[in-house]
Amino acid sequence: MSDPVIDAVLAADRALHGVLEARDLASIRSVWDRSDRALCAHPGRPILRTWRLVEESWRRILEGTGRNRFAVAAESVSFAGAAAWDTVDEDIGVGMVAGPVVATNLFAAHGDRWGLVVHQGSPVLGR
Amino acid sequence: MSDPVIDAVLAADRALHGVLEARDLASIRSVWDRSDRALCAHPGRPILRTWRLVEESWRRILEGTGRNRFAVAAESVSFAGAAAWDTVDEDIGVGMVAGPVVATNLFAAHGDRWGLVVHQGSPVLGR
Repeated sequence: MSDPVIDAVLAADRALHGVLEARDLASIRSVWDRSDRALCAHPGRPILRTWRLVEESWRRILEGTGRNRFAVAAESVSFAGAAAWDTVDEDIGVGMVAGPVVATNLFAAHGDRWGLVVHQGSPVLGR
Repeated sequence: MSDPVIDAVLAADRALHGVLEARDLASIRSVWDRSDRALCAHPGRPILRTWRLVEESWRRILEGTGRNRFAVAAESVSFAGAAAWDTVDEDIGVGMVAGPVVATNLFAAHGDRWGLVVHQGSPVLGR
């Protein structure tokens, strides 16, 4: 699809996964909606509300050892006005939860920019 | 707040939690956006895409024994145009994952109706 809005959201999503692999806080900052409405739940962890707490969590993750891998296996994007979301299957190679993770990413538009307002990753546990 | 849109979304969210406690598939159907864009990840489980798969999962949950409890401890609602979302802290009393769960609910408007398009619950694991 060549819809510019879809392209913008897909680009934001690719950027998100790219910066996670790059382990670079400045890049992570660049994809988020850095406001009080930012919400993030890392796999197996409670919800963090406000960008202040979300940023702090990423800082700690990046300070940790190891290199997370994110293998996106599936992707879909939906829209409702100024919001867009997708869900992805990931594989986290190293970290507090090693193994498959499902993640929802919700982006909200501010003008031309789509900022990440919700990121929730949840571990897929064994049967 | 008395904003009618906020009221509508909060009502939809309360309905969601009410019907989960009631264990009634017809009520669960009533809160969802019953389309191919419906996405649901139950705690510890993979993402289900399309209403057909989401509905089937709820049917199986309701067929199970036990009564899930959902104690909502915190709630926030954000909006971006025709989309609204909240995150809640839940406690699941009985089920495949017993214990604290964080959940994101995303609603999309179709006219006056706000239908649930994404529900993701993830277990909060021990430290």
